[in-house]
Amino acid sequence: MFSCVGYAASSATAPLQPFSFERRDCGPHDVQIDITHCGVCHSDIHTVRSEWGESAYPCVPGHEIIGRVVKTGAEVSRFKTGDLVGVGCMVNSCRHCPSCDAGLEQYCDSSPTWTYNSPDTAFPTAGAHTYGGYSGSVVVDSHFVLKVPENLDPAAAAPLLCAGITTWSPLAHWKVGKGHKVGVVGLGGLGHMAVKFAVALGAEVTLFTTSPSKVEDGKRLGAHRVVISKDAKAMEAEANRFDFILDAVSAEHDINAYLALLRQDGHMVLVGLPEKPMSVGAFALVGKRRSLAGSAIGGIQETQEMLDFCGKHNITADIERIRIDEVNEAYERVLRSDVKYRFVIDMATLPKAA
Amino acid sequence: MFSCVGYAASSATAPLQPFSFERRDCGPHDVQIDITHCGVCHSDIHTVRSEWGESAYPCVPGHEIIGRVVKTGAEVSRFKTGDLVGVGCMVNSCRHCPSCDAGLEQYCDSSPTWTYNSPDTAFPTAGAHTYGGYSGSVVVDSHFVLKVPENLDPAAAAPLLCAGITTWSPLAHWKVGKGHKVGVVGLGGLGHMAVKFAVALGAEVTLFTTSPSKVEDGKRLGAHRVVISKDAKAMEAEANRFDFILDAVSAEHDINAYLALLRQDGHMVLVGLPEKPMSVGAFALVGKRRSLAGSAIGGIQETQEMLDFCGKHNITADIERIRIDEVNEAYERVLRSDVKYRFVIDMATLPKAA
Repeated sequence: MFSCVGYAASSATAPLQPFSFERRDCGPHDVQIDITHCGVCHSDIHTVRSEWGESAYPCVPGHEIIGRVVKTGAEVSRFKTGDLVGVGCMVNSCRHCPSCDAGLEQYCDSSPTWTYNSPDTAFPTAGAHTYGGYSGSVVVDSHFVLKVPENLDPAAAAPLLCAGITTWSPLAHWKVGKGHKVGVVGLGGLGHMAVKFAVALGAEVTLFTTSPSKVEDGKRLGAHRVVISKDAKAMEAEANRFDFILDAVSAEHDINAYLALLRQDGHMVLVGLPEKPMSVGAFALVGKRRSLAGSAIGGIQETQEMLDFCGKHNITADIERIRIDEVNEAYERVLRSDVKYRFVIDMATLPKAA
Repeated sequence: MFSCVGYAASSATAPLQPFSFERRDCGPHDVQIDITHCGVCHSDIHTVRSEWGESAYPCVPGHEIIGRVVKTGAEVSRFKTGDLVGVGCMVNSCRHCPSCDAGLEQYCDSSPTWTYNSPDTAFPTAGAHTYGGYSGSVVVDSHFVLKVPENLDPAAAAPLLCAGITTWSPLAHWKVGKGHKVGVVGLGGLGHMAVKFAVALGAEVTLFTTSPSKVEDGKRLGAHRVVISKDAKAMEAEANRFDFILDAVSAEHDINAYLALLRQDGHMVLVGLPEKPMSVGAFALVGKRRSLAGSAIGGIQETQEMLDFCGKHNITADIERIRIDEVNEAYERVLRSDVKYRFVIDMATLPKAA
């Protein structure tokens, strides 16, 4: 065990504050990483505030982790000291169920071990739950460590580990590419990555946004077309047009308005998680054999494929860099959607001791 | 033009009564059919009663048509006098949109010409809308006429043209077969065909029904397992089990209870049309990359494939034969789900004149 400093919330209503805790020593299959950057995901806020069920406290969030390898276990050959690496939402899984066998650990039958706020049965720590990336270092089984191309800005690469893979995975699974008409709903942390990926994959990309102020930014990010979703006539004109729509909106919204925009056999895939059940009309699905699906983050193998693709196409997130002591304020801005399009914490600003 | 007798409703509240009308003469691409049997579909009742929007009156319903060819047009080579044939829900379509080109005329961009209550722009009749199969004969473009295997009972084959193809099409499209665990929700006209098809395709079939009284019948029809869907514990035990669930229920019901039964990447397909929007939870879809889709009847080519499959496997519907003058009473029984599992009208009981 070794001592580590991070930022933690002590309860659902407490702000994040410096916190000292123990990490396990680097085991034979592990990689020990000095964290340089960590992205701020909306899930962090939900978890810190116990909005998705009662969280375990102290809660150290963070699952968009970038850092440098400082130690590797005896059995680890894929990584060496100094490598630029990433860790996303998962740090373990059962490794033998059909989903794990298929490289889709996020759907593990026993549930993966999440990077934070997750029972850590394989490696019980003092608190018996995992601590995330708002911290100075982390020890992770090498299977769950990703190689990050050296040509990418490490700070701007951090959000690839969650916002990136969450949008990449469905685009890859449904084989989006050249000749496809793709819609992206919502321009936030996830949506802006979906636009970049779909464009790089060769699709014709239409961004749907409620905000006329985002039209210009959507086009700058590469969207070929932008439709204001509050404009009923503009929406009607898009009917039966799309092969694939990626819906990155977590707030309550009208799903049927988008289902009607799919052509025959088109797919709409949710990556946001609206809390209330959605109202879905059967006619929209039956009339054109459309489907409404969901997709959760992505597997380790496809995360590596995404990072390699990003290295080749020089794709990262649009970010605002913050100091760790600005994180509570950043949370408030995330809740106001006042960020373009992801906060990333510079972990060099972490205090040496808590 | 020639005179034809049928049964029609004169308004949304009138019973079906004998009705005399004109059919077009058999054109060069047409087949003229003497109708021997016609199935009674719930859609007939919805249309006769203007429950799906204002219908055109007089309304002659019926789109599960079986008969014998009595005349063929000069350009028709696929059919000859005496052939046993069927006509389903469509009698025309644009024939040049992507859906029509793909043999999926039911999704025609211009909407197909339905067998009844549909504007008949290509062949305007006196009423300018199509008249269906509760009648003595019909003239149909040969593209929309199906060959019916002679080894099948013509009466019991009638429901294949709607209930049959509606359940066959999604099973075929999603490639259901050996090694698949398939759920069928609801044992009615559609559900009982889905059970027969899925069993014949080699899947392990579980029927979900609210009625303990249907357990025995489900097994007689071939279902390997029957689950009473009102039994919450029994439903929980089925979680993450199914590759494919076909939902044939039009009444309001809890979709999420079934989505939870799909394994990763499983599909649930609606063929029923609940009138009210369904309440769908995003977590059920996102958590296992499940999808909820819809499917409408089927294309002409796949309808022929289904009929050929039925000939080979000797599959027909379970039916109750009725006289045409029993049809109004039959409607009331359909509304009470008091039919196992489809009424078929013996068209020999039609009066010679109205």
